[in-house]
Amino acid sequence: MWRLYQFPLCPFSRKVRLLLGEKGVAYDLIRESPWEGQDAFLDLNPAGQTPVMVEEEKGVVLIDSQAICEYFEETVEKLPLINGSAAGRAEVRRLTAWADQIFYRDVVAPLLEERMKKRLVHRAPPDGGRLREAMRNANTHMDYMDYLLDHRSWLAGGTMSLADIAVAAQLSVADYLGGIDWAGHEPVKRWYSALKSRPSFRPLLSERMEVIMPPDYYEKPDF
Amino acid sequence: MWRLYQFPLCPFSRKVRLLLGEKGVAYDLIRESPWEGQDAFLDLNPAGQTPVMVEEEKGVVLIDSQAICEYFEETVEKLPLINGSAAGRAEVRRLTAWADQIFYRDVVAPLLEERMKKRLVHRAPPDGGRLREAMRNANTHMDYMDYLLDHRSWLAGGTMSLADIAVAAQLSVADYLGGIDWAGHEPVKRWYSALKSRPSFRPLLSERMEVIMPPDYYEKPDF
Ligand SMILES: N[C@@H](CCC(=O)N[C@@H](CS)C(=O)NCC(=O)O)C(=O)O
Ligand SMILES: N[C@@H](CCC(=O)N[C@@H](CS)C(=O)NCC(=O)O)C(=O)O
Repeated sequence: MWRLYQFPLCPFSRKVRLLLGEKGVAYDLIRESPWEGQDAFLDLNPAGQTPVMVEEEKGVVLIDSQAICEYFEETVEKLPLINGSAAGRAEVRRLTAWADQIFYRDVVAPLLEERMKKRLVHRAPPDGGRLREAMRNANTHMDYMDYLLDHRSWLAGGTMSLADIAVAAQLSVADYLGGIDWAGHEPVKRWYSALKSRPSFRPLLSERMEVIMPPDYYEKPDF
Repeated sequence: MWRLYQFPLCPFSRKVRLLLGEKGVAYDLIRESPWEGQDAFLDLNPAGQTPVMVEEEKGVVLIDSQAICEYFEETVEKLPLINGSAAGRAEVRRLTAWADQIFYRDVVAPLLEERMKKRLVHRAPPDGGRLREAMRNANTHMDYMDYLLDHRSWLAGGTMSLADIAVAAQLSVADYLGGIDWAGHEPVKRWYSALKSRPSFRPLLSERMEVIMPPDYYEKPDF
C-alpha cells in the first residue's frame, strides 16, 4: 500500500491526492510537519519537503509532487490527466508549473506563513500588509484564470487535466486561509464549484488543520 | 525554426539548451531580460519568465523549462534523457526539481541577485553576507552530490539524464558568478568535467554577460 507523507494544508500534497483520487489509487496518510525538520523525514527527503510517497514492498520512494504525478500518469492508465497532443501536454505542464510556482509564491506561501506558521510555530500575529498583498495577488491571478475559462472549458483546454487539479489544490488552501474574495470571478467560481463536487475533492475539504478554521462556505460546492 | 527567448545567465534556459544540444534540435537565440518586464514579452508569457520557445510556423509556444524539456523528450526520439523504469524516471524528475527549485533558491537566485541584478539594474554593491551564505549553501549541496556520485555514475543512476543537465545548468551559472569553491569535491568535479567536454556545453561556456566576467578557469574542462 502507498503511504503519503503530508499535512492537511500542503497544496502540493493536495495536488497528489486529487490525482490519486481521480485515478482510483489507494493510499494511507502519514502526518508530517516539514517545518519541524525531523531527522527521520530528512533521511527520507533531503529537501525536507512534503509530499513524499512510499511503497515499502516495492522499495519505491517518490519525491516532488510533479515527479509523483508523472509517475502515476505513466503507470495508471485510468483517466489520463496530462493529456492531448504534445503541445497540449506542454500547456497542461505550463499551467501546472504556474500553479505550483507562481500562484504558490504570490498567494499561498505568504498565506501559509502569516496564517498558519506564525500561529502554530512562531506564536506571532500575522503581518496585515503581507496578507493584503497576497489577496491582491490572488485577485490578479484569478483575473487571468477568468480569461482562460472564457475561452476554454477547463484551464488547459477542452478536458479536465492536471492543470485544473494543481490550480484547485493551491486555490483550496488559499480559500481555507481566508485569502480568496470570490466576488467578480464568475468563471473561476463555476469551474471551482464543478471540481469541488467531484468525489476526489470531498475528503480534502472535510479535513481541518488544528486550531485554524476555514470560512463557513469553504466546504460548500455552492458558495 | 524554433526560437528560444533567454539571457546568457538564465540557468533554466541553459537546461533547455543542453537538452536541445544533446538531442540535435536547431534553434535561434533571442535575447530577453525578464526583469525589464517588456509588454511584448508579458504577452508571450504572463508569468514574465525565461525560457520561452516559439515555433511560429507550427503556432506552438512552450513555457517553463520542464514543460519544454518534456515536450522535446516526447517528440524527439534521439537520446532519451528522462530514462529508465517508471521509478527511475521519477528519480530523474526528483533531482531535476531539486536543481530547479532547491539549488536555484539557495545558491543561484541569491548569486544572480547580488552579482548580476545589483550590478546591471540597481547599480548597488552586493551584500557580502548573502554571497557568503549562497556559497555555504553551494558547499552543502555539493556534499550531497558527492554522496550521490559515490554510489552512481551519473546523478540519477547509471546513465546520463535530464537530472545531470539541470544540475549542471545551475552549477555553471553559480560558477560563472564566482560562487563555487571546488576544493574537496572530487566526485562533483570529475562529473562536471565530463559534462563540460560535451559539444552541447561548449557554446554556453563561451558566452559572456555584458560587464560581468567569469573566473579564469570557468571554461576549462580541466580546472
Ligand atoms: N516542488 C515541491 C514543493 C513542495 C513544498 O514546497 N512543500 C512545502 C509544504 S507545502 C514544504 O515542505 N516546505 C518546507 C520547506 O521548503 O522547507 C513539490 O511540488 O512537491
Ligand atoms: N519554472 C521556470 C522558472 C524560470 C525562471 O525563474 N526564470 C527567471 C530567469 S533565470 C526569470 O525569468 N525570472 C523573472 C521573474 O521571475 O520575474 C522554468 O523552469 O522555466
